[in-house]
Amino acid sequence: MKKMRIGIIGAGRIGKIHADNLLRIPEVEIIAVSDLFAGPELDAWAAARNIPLVTKDSSILIQHAEIDAIFICSSTDTHVPLIEQAAKAGKHIFCEKPISMDIAQTEAAIAEVQKAGVKLQIGFNRRFDHNFKRVQEVVQNGGIGEPHIIKITSRDPNPPHIDYVKVSGGIFMDMMIHDFDMARYVSGSEVEEVYAIGNVLINPDFAQHGDVDTAVVSLRFANGALGVIDNSRQAVYGYDQRVEVFGSKGSVAVANDHPNTAVISTADAIVSDKPLHFFLERYQTAYIEETQMFIDAILNDKPVPVSGEDGVQAERIALAAKLSARLGRPVKVSEALELLNQNA
Amino acid sequence: MKKMRIGIIGAGRIGKIHADNLLRIPEVEIIAVSDLFAGPELDAWAAARNIPLVTKDSSILIQHAEIDAIFICSSTDTHVPLIEQAAKAGKHIFCEKPISMDIAQTEAAIAEVQKAGVKLQIGFNRRFDHNFKRVQEVVQNGGIGEPHIIKITSRDPNPPHIDYVKVSGGIFMDMMIHDFDMARYVSGSEVEEVYAIGNVLINPDFAQHGDVDTAVVSLRFANGALGVIDNSRQAVYGYDQRVEVFGSKGSVAVANDHPNTAVISTADAIVSDKPLHFFLERYQTAYIEETQMFIDAILNDKPVPVSGEDGVQAERIALAAKLSARLGRPVKVSEALELLNQNA
Amino acid sequence: MKKMRIGIIGAGRIGKIHADNLLRIPEVEIIAVSDLFAGPELDAWAAARNIPLVTKDSSILIQHAEIDAIFICSSTDTHVPLIEQAAKAGKHIFCEKPISMDIAQTEAAIAEVQKAGVKLQIGFNRRFDHNFKRVQEVVQNGGIGEPHIIKITSRDPNPPHIDYVKVSGGIFMDMMIHDFDMARYVSGSEVEEVYAIGNVLINPDFAQHGDVDTAVVSLRFANGALGVIDNSRQAVYGYDQRVEVFGSKGSVAVANDHPNTAVISTADAIVSDKPLHFFLERYQTAYIEETQMFIDAILNDKPVPVSGEDGVQAERIALAAKLSARLGRPVKVSEALELLNQNA
Amino acid sequence: MKKMRIGIIGAGRIGKIHADNLLRIPEVEIIAVSDLFAGPELDAWAAARNIPLVTKDSSILIQHAEIDAIFICSSTDTHVPLIEQAAKAGKHIFCEKPISMDIAQTEAAIAEVQKAGVKLQIGFNRRFDHNFKRVQEVVQNGGIGEPHIIKITSRDPNPPHIDYVKVSGGIFMDMMIHDFDMARYVSGSEVEEVYAIGNVLINPDFAQHGDVDTAVVSLRFANGALGVIDNSRQAVYGYDQRVEVFGSKGSVAVANDHPNTAVISTADAIVSDKPLHFFLERYQTAYIEETQMFIDAILNDKPVPVSGEDGVQAERIALAAKLSARLGRPVKVSEALELLNQNA
Repeated sequence: MKKMRIGIIGAGRIGKIHADNLLRIPEVEIIAVSDLFAGPELDAWAAARNIPLVTKDSSILIQHAEIDAIFICSSTDTHVPLIEQAAKAGKHIFCEKPISMDIAQTEAAIAEVQKAGVKLQIGFNRRFDHNFKRVQEVVQNGGIGEPHIIKITSRDPNPPHIDYVKVSGGIFMDMMIHDFDMARYVSGSEVEEVYAIGNVLINPDFAQHGDVDTAVVSLRFANGALGVIDNSRQAVYGYDQRVEVFGSKGSVAVANDHPNTAVISTADAIVSDKPLHFFLERYQTAYIEETQMFIDAILNDKPVPVSGEDGVQAERIALAAKLSARLGRPVKVSEALELLNQNA
Repeated sequence: MKKMRIGIIGAGRIGKIHADNLLRIPEVEIIAVSDLFAGPELDAWAAARNIPLVTKDSSILIQHAEIDAIFICSSTDTHVPLIEQAAKAGKHIFCEKPISMDIAQTEAAIAEVQKAGVKLQIGFNRRFDHNFKRVQEVVQNGGIGEPHIIKITSRDPNPPHIDYVKVSGGIFMDMMIHDFDMARYVSGSEVEEVYAIGNVLINPDFAQHGDVDTAVVSLRFANGALGVIDNSRQAVYGYDQRVEVFGSKGSVAVANDHPNTAVISTADAIVSDKPLHFFLERYQTAYIEETQMFIDAILNDKPVPVSGEDGVQAERIALAAKLSARLGRPVKVSEALELLNQNA
Repeated sequence: MKKMRIGIIGAGRIGKIHADNLLRIPEVEIIAVSDLFAGPELDAWAAARNIPLVTKDSSILIQHAEIDAIFICSSTDTHVPLIEQAAKAGKHIFCEKPISMDIAQTEAAIAEVQKAGVKLQIGFNRRFDHNFKRVQEVVQNGGIGEPHIIKITSRDPNPPHIDYVKVSGGIFMDMMIHDFDMARYVSGSEVEEVYAIGNVLINPDFAQHGDVDTAVVSLRFANGALGVIDNSRQAVYGYDQRVEVFGSKGSVAVANDHPNTAVISTADAIVSDKPLHFFLERYQTAYIEETQMFIDAILNDKPVPVSGEDGVQAERIALAAKLSARLGRPVKVSEALELLNQNA
Repeated sequence: MKKMRIGIIGAGRIGKIHADNLLRIPEVEIIAVSDLFAGPELDAWAAARNIPLVTKDSSILIQHAEIDAIFICSSTDTHVPLIEQAAKAGKHIFCEKPISMDIAQTEAAIAEVQKAGVKLQIGFNRRFDHNFKRVQEVVQNGGIGEPHIIKITSRDPNPPHIDYVKVSGGIFMDMMIHDFDMARYVSGSEVEEVYAIGNVLINPDFAQHGDVDTAVVSLRFANGALGVIDNSRQAVYGYDQRVEVFGSKGSVAVANDHPNTAVISTADAIVSDKPLHFFLERYQTAYIEETQMFIDAILNDKPVPVSGEDGVQAERIALAAKLSARLGRPVKVSEALELLNQNA
C-alpha cells in the first residue's frame, strides 16, 4: 500500500498535535515539517517520529514532489499565500482557522482552491466533539423539531498573552469565530444578522488594543430562529463550552466534560472536580477525528466535513459582529463587507 | 391577639392562591373578597374558608373600616386606580405585576402610595423561589466576584389563549417583565440598555396582534455586566426557568425543579421526568413566602421585599425592549419613555 | 358538613407535625390532645390551634364519645395497650412505627383491631415520599421488568442521644425497620431471609448498649430477587435516603432531595448545597400525604395505605436481622420468632 | 535509544488491545506474538504493525533472547505454567486476571516470580480508570475520613456465551474478582470475611453449570468497615460500574461514563444516552495506562501498580465468596483454602 504523504507547515502546539494524530493513521506518513524557528529541538522532535525532512522554508514542502497534502498551522497572516501556493502546486490543504482576517483575500484563496480542484478543510475542530456532534445529529434528525433558539456559551480558562491580543484580530475574529461556525453547524441555517455588545471586565489591556474580553452577541438566522453567544476570556473554573438548541418539539443541551464523575459529599458541601481545563484536553479526540476525516476525504474522494466556504462564512459573521460592536447597531452579515469599506 | 384583616380584589386563579396562602398565616384573617363575576361559586368558595363578605364592588373593600390591607389581583388595567384608591383609604397594598402598561400612570400611582405612607409590594413571586434566592445570595456574598454575564431562560409550557394575547401588552411587558426584574435582582445592578429581537415561530396569531412568541434580549448593566434573556411561549417539555450569573471568581447556575429525582435506565435510554409543569407547581412555596413577607413587613414595619419602584423599573425595561424590537436598534432604558412619546 | 374529630396521644415532635397537617384538611378537626407532660406550654400550643381539650390522661381521649380517630404518637412501649384500648372503644387508629418491639404483642394488638373492625394505619411515612412513590410506581408498572436487585441506603445526619439508644430497640428495630418496609414496598415482594453485619464505628457508647451504629443487611426476596440495605447513624453531609431497583428491563434509582439546584463553579471546584438535612425537611410533604390518606380511607371506607400487617411484617424482618447479627448467620424471617424464644 | 522488546502470548481481543496500546509507547517494540490459532489473519494483523514474528508456539517467545517482557493474554488455564516458564527465563511478566482458579498453584507461580526477581503485573485494569483512581485518591488523602461502608456495583450489558460460563470459574472468580480487587484498592484495607447470595434470574443455563447470574456479597474489612458488592450478568441499559465509599467525614461516589453529555427534553421526558457500552469503551484509557505503568515500572525499576499478591488475594476472596454461596454461611477469607479442601 502506498501511503499518503503529508507536509506540515508550522510546528507550534497545534501543528504538533496534528502531527501526532496523523501518525496514528496507518495510511499516512509525514515526510516533512517546516517552521520559521526550526532548530535542534524541532530536529529531535521530528527524529523521534521518523519525519525525515525539517526546514525553515515552507516552499520546499509546497514544491515537494512526494507530498500529497499540506497542513497549514502557521500564523494566520501566512494562511492565504500558503493556501494559494499549495493549491497551485496541486496539494490538498488542511488550514487552521481563521483563514485570514480579510474576507476578500479569503475569498480569493478559496477561488484558487476551486480552480486547482484540490480539497481544502478548515480546522473548526469543535464540529468533531462528541457532545456537539450529538447536538447536531439530534437537530438534523428532527429530534427537537424546528429550531427556535440557539444558545452557545464559550469561555476560556485564561486570557491569552497581551502580545497575542494585539495581533489576534479581536475577540470576534479570534475566539467567537468558533461559535459562529458552531451556530451554523448545530442550527443547519445561516446567520443573517448580528448584534454585538462587549466590555473590558477582566484586563484593561484589552481596551488598549481596541478589544474586549467579554461579549454577548444576539443572532438572527435565515430559518427564523434567534440565537445568542456569550464569550469570556476568563472562566476561573475552567474551559466552559456549552450549546443548547431549543425548538418546536423540545431541546437538546450539552454540558462540559469533566475528568471524572466523582461526587464528594462532606460536612460543607457536595463537590465535584472542575471541567477539563482547556481545548487540548477537551478536544483531544475531536482533533484526532478531524484529521481522520480529512485523510478519508482525500483517500476516498469525499467532501471535506468543513469547507473553505464554511471558513469564509464564519469570518463574514465575525466581521459583522465586530462592526456591530463598533457601530452600536445590528449588522446584516450580507452588508458587513461593504460597511467595512465605508467605515475604513 | 388582634389579627390583621385582608381584603382581596379579584378572585381569579392568582387571587385564590394568595387567599389560601394567607389563611395559613395565624396572624391573618381574610374578611372580604370582591370580583366582577362574583356569584354562587365564589360564595361557596368563600364560605368554605370562613370569608364573610363577597361582593362585586371593590370599593366596598377599599372603604371597609376593618380592612388593613388589600390584595389587588384583578386585571392589569384596574391596578392603577385601585392602588390610588386603596392608598388614599390608608390601606397597605399587595399588587400583582405589572402595575400597568403605562409608565406615567404607574409612577403616579406610586407617588400616591408614598404620599399616603402605606406599604406597596409588587407580585414578583420569582424572587422568593428557593433557586433564585440562592443565586442572589451567592452573588451578593461575593461568591462569584464581580458579575460579568447574566443569562436568564424563561419559557412557558403552553402559549396563553389568543384572547389574552390581545390585551397582554405583548411578550416583553407580560412575560419577560419577570425576567427583567430577575436580572436586576440577581445582578444587584440596573439594566441600562437593551436590544430585543423576536419572531413568531409558534402561532401566527401572535403576529396578528403585533406580538411575537419567541424573543431574545441582550442587556447592558450599570456595573458593566452584559446579559441575555430568552423567552418562548411554548416549551413542550414544560416550564423552563433557569438563571446563570458568571463573574470574576466563578459562576452560579440554577436548573429546573422536577417532581422527583427518579432516573430510569432502560435498553433505550436514560430517562427522567419532565420539570414541574408551570408556575403554580414551580412557585408554590414562592407564593407562600411572598405573602408571608408582605404580612411581616406590615406587622413589623419593615421594608417590603419588592417595592413599587421595583415594579416601575421592570416596566421601564420592558418598554425599552418593546421599542427596541419595533425600531430595530438598541434602546437605553432612560430614553424609553421619551422615545415612546416621539413614536406615538 | 359534620367534620371528622381526632384525638392525638403524645404531643412530641411527631405528634405536633401530624396535628398541623391534620388542621390543613377541611374535613377534620382536632378536639383533644393528651401528653404525659401536658402543661402551660402545651396549653398554649393547643389554644393557638383551637384544640379545646388538653389532658395528661390518654384514656379520656380513647373514651371520648365525640372522637372518631386516635393518633398514637407516644413512646413505643405504649403503642400496644393504646391500640387495644382504642380498638375496643371503636376508634380508628393511626399509630407511629414500630408498633412494638415484641412481635407476639404486636400480633395480639392487630387481632384486636380486626375484631373491632376499625382501621389501623402505621406511620411508615417514607411510602408517601415523591421519590419512593415513583420507584414503586415504575416497578409496579413493569417499567424495569422483574426486579433482580434492590438497594437501599439510609443514613442519618446525626446519631440519636445515647439515652434514646438504650430504649430504641437497636438499629434494626428502630432505624432499619423503615428500610425493611421500603424493601417490601418497592419490590412488591416479601423478604424471606436476611444476613446482617454491623459495627461500632461512630460512637463506642453504642457498643455499651449492645447496639451498632453502622450496618449492612443482605436480603433474599420471595420472588427470587436479592437486596441490600446499608445504614449509618451519622452521614456528616446530611440525610441520605436513596433507593435503586434493578431488573430484567432496566433500573430505577432515586437520589436525595436538595434545598435548591444551584451549582457554584469556582477556581477550586464545582459545588452544590447538601441534601435536605433530616426527616422533618425531607419528608414534610410525605407526612402531609400520609395523614390525608388515612382520613380519606376512613371517610370513604377505603383500605389504609399501610396496614397493621405491614407493621408487623417489618418487625419480623427487623427481628430476623437482629438475630442474624447476633448469631453470625443468615436467618429466615419465618424462623425469627421461634429462634428468639430458643435464644431467650 | 535501545527499545524495550515485548512478546505477546495470546492474540485474542485483549491481547490485541494491549498490543496496540504498547505500540503507542515510543520506548517499546513488539517483536513477537504467539497464538494457538495463528494463521493468515494474525499474520496480516502483525504485518500491519511491523511485528516480525508470529508463531503458534509460546515457548519460542519465552526463550527468545531479544525479548524483555511477556504479556500473557491466553486462556486462564495457561497462566500458571507460562508465568513459571517466563520467570525462569528471566522475563518480566504482565498477566491477565485471574492468574488461575487454583490458589495453591497461583501461590507457587508467584513464588517462582519472586525467586527469579522479575516483575509481575496483574491485569486489574479498573484500578487505572479515571473514576476509580479518583475514589482511591480521595480516600487515601483522608477526604472522607475513616471508611465505614464500601459499595460496589458491577453489571455487564450482556451475559457471556454459555460455553464460556462452563469454564469461567463462576461469577465470583470470573466477574466479581474485579470487584474484590476494587474493594481492596479503594478501601485501603483487606477483606476478612464475606457472605454471598446468588440466584439465576437471567438465564436458566447458568444453573446447569452450577453458576448464578446475579449475586450480592457483603464484606467485612480488617479496618472495621463493612461493604457490599452486587453483580448482574445483564444490565440492559449497558455496562454499570459504580463505586461509593462512605466514611466518618463524608463520601465519594462515582457514576458511569457516557458517550456525551447531551440532555434531550421532549414532550415525553428528559432523556440522555446510555452509558459507554462495555469494558472496551469504558476502560479504553485504563488499558493504555496500565501498560504504560508496567513499562515504566520495568524501565525505571519501580514497583508494579498491581502485584502478584494483589492477584492472589482477590482469588482468595473470590474463593471465600464461592464457598459462602455454596455453604449458605459467612466465610472468612483466611479459612477459605482449608475449607475448600475439607469440602472437596
